[in-house]
Amino acid sequence: MISSLSSQTIGILGGGQLGLMLLQAAIDWNLRVHILDPDAEAPCRHLATSFQQGSLTDYDTVYQFGQSVDVLTIEIEKVNVDALEALEREGKKVYPQPSVIRTIQDKRVQKQFFRDHNLPTADFILTDDRGHVTQFTEFLPAFHKLGRDGYDGRGVQRIASADEVHKAFDAPGVLEKAVDFNKELAVIVGRNERGEMMTFPTVEMVFHPEQNLVEYLFAPAEIPEAVNQQAQDIARQTAEAFGIVGLLAVEMFLTKDGDVLVNEVAPRPHNSGHHTIRANVTSQYEQHWRAILNLPLGDTTAYQPAAMVNLLGEPGHTGPARYEGFEQLLGMPGVFPFLYGKAITKPFRKMGHVTVMDTDLERLRQKVAEVKQCVRVVS
Amino acid sequence: MISSLSSQTIGILGGGQLGLMLLQAAIDWNLRVHILDPDAEAPCRHLATSFQQGSLTDYDTVYQFGQSVDVLTIEIEKVNVDALEALEREGKKVYPQPSVIRTIQDKRVQKQFFRDHNLPTADFILTDDRGHVTQFTEFLPAFHKLGRDGYDGRGVQRIASADEVHKAFDAPGVLEKAVDFNKELAVIVGRNERGEMMTFPTVEMVFHPEQNLVEYLFAPAEIPEAVNQQAQDIARQTAEAFGIVGLLAVEMFLTKDGDVLVNEVAPRPHNSGHHTIRANVTSQYEQHWRAILNLPLGDTTAYQPAAMVNLLGEPGHTGPARYEGFEQLLGMPGVFPFLYGKAITKPFRKMGHVTVMDTDLERLRQKVAEVKQCVRVVS
Repeated sequence: MISSLSSQTIGILGGGQLGLMLLQAAIDWNLRVHILDPDAEAPCRHLATSFQQGSLTDYDTVYQFGQSVDVLTIEIEKVNVDALEALEREGKKVYPQPSVIRTIQDKRVQKQFFRDHNLPTADFILTDDRGHVTQFTEFLPAFHKLGRDGYDGRGVQRIASADEVHKAFDAPGVLEKAVDFNKELAVIVGRNERGEMMTFPTVEMVFHPEQNLVEYLFAPAEIPEAVNQQAQDIARQTAEAFGIVGLLAVEMFLTKDGDVLVNEVAPRPHNSGHHTIRANVTSQYEQHWRAILNLPLGDTTAYQPAAMVNLLGEPGHTGPARYEGFEQLLGMPGVFPFLYGKAITKPFRKMGHVTVMDTDLERLRQKVAEVKQCVRVVS
Repeated sequence: MISSLSSQTIGILGGGQLGLMLLQAAIDWNLRVHILDPDAEAPCRHLATSFQQGSLTDYDTVYQFGQSVDVLTIEIEKVNVDALEALEREGKKVYPQPSVIRTIQDKRVQKQFFRDHNLPTADFILTDDRGHVTQFTEFLPAFHKLGRDGYDGRGVQRIASADEVHKAFDAPGVLEKAVDFNKELAVIVGRNERGEMMTFPTVEMVFHPEQNLVEYLFAPAEIPEAVNQQAQDIARQTAEAFGIVGLLAVEMFLTKDGDVLVNEVAPRPHNSGHHTIRANVTSQYEQHWRAILNLPLGDTTAYQPAAMVNLLGEPGHTGPARYEGFEQLLGMPGVFPFLYGKAITKPFRKMGHVTVMDTDLERLRQKVAEVKQCVRVVS
């Protein structure tokens, strides 16, 4: 019963910025949240009911941490799924479900899952190693993605032609037809135990040209309503196919032909939903709690159009972080910086983000440009 | 410089619900916040950078706690001001300033301050003890308020006539002419070191008939624009008179004659501003940080009309708290409960609040009625 919300304990595997924003949302309902993270300096270290330093990939550590809580969730996919499955078998609530995490951990399995469930996705070939890749030069240009352990652009390479095949990762991967796309879209779906679903408005992601990291994002995406409907439907179908309990962030391509294709998914709060803290009735973080605690899902309506600018560590700067221009940011109306509390900045490290809001789209774009001009994370 | 925002340490005297909401807002900017509170089970106990159990009224405890931080603030007025003054003399930033806290701690001094600064306030007489009160029967009906240590309705009595004078508190107090008022209003003012000021929209408080506690509140107040302007001006004048750095919540009466009179003030985040977390561009909690850290003050515009319902412990229930109807609340659109994490409920104890929002005032009122019907804090 709900009266016991604050008497149950929740564990999160991972104590980074997503965990931090989950903790911030958890304060509203006085949820007791315990964190496991390998980094003693993780952003969540001071703000959890308890913080345990330990490996997320070690069976015993994850298993024992899971046993100490009533509900277990994640803020990062790279965790020991065997331990989660053992906990699930023993009746522990583990959301998202270990089977979902297992499927998503390996991009090969994930892609095959899309195909098996008739979810539209770019054509692909599963490859075993570099030698295998060289057999498919007629399939190029393509993206070659490592099956496991890719993260934030690492583990993804573009192979334009046969000349470049020699640089392919020499490990199991997926060779994905390079799609001519106009936009990259994302929809975050919340789904609870009862199977209720609620989607956030479709957003448009703009990637950093070099780093394959989201550089900024607009919400809502500027797309025709029919395309929006397609993106929303595909996101729901994807969440339904997984049967996920929790959040599923569905990244999609809008091709030049007007098709919407699933690119990849994440079973947790996502970079493409940071702005919802300020801009939407329910944030993705609160929605995560609602979904995994089997509560009614919250209204996802936006109050105003919003943009999100990632605060990435400036190239050439490694060391204790300083935020140049932070005070000017705070003087700009409708501009909301959020810092992740990472002591050390490195080139392109995600150090924070800035949510920007405005009722007028042109002014919103103008403000985004000003924010990007104004703030730098340096050492 | 602002780049060092997260390297400086902030201390809060008090770790109750106001401290909790300050901590929640502090997460955005990765502020390091240390808490001192006498209660080992205070709401802030798990969520601060550090939590120290100790007396807020003991000179040495407050002085030493203050020495350990760079900026010191409060979430409750009943603190040792001598220690704060010593710290201030030594160059510590103490906001609000000790002189402001000293004035406000004693309702006699506070009332005299209003008079000395030509701030409109109900006529009053300072009284030394019960015997003194009996000399002013022609001044009745009046409210008799204890000079010191009144809180949440305790320490305030209505004395209707000479027959009731025998029940007057036998301590220094203030006898305040009972005002025929239509509404009770409040305006929260933020003021930073540079003297910049920003007010939140005027709200209307509805008190519990028995408990002299805010039962619910509407924002914005339904008052003519001229009255609103008067309330806003008086609030600004009051903050200016104190020269406060921080927040000043100014409670006012709107009399039947259309006058606005200052009732009392609080130099900190206030019950009348809880709804700003959800309803306003900048919350009162974020504004407090902006004010005391000498940052630009934030936009106080409301996204939508809002109401706030206090969650008070149900009469007849003392013990571990349960929140009946909480799940139904979460299913209501635009309804945002906030629980303070107090383990034990007691009759009329403030256990949480619910913010209610709607674009339509009639629906807003309807929702408030539903919320009050729906939820009960029981043991």
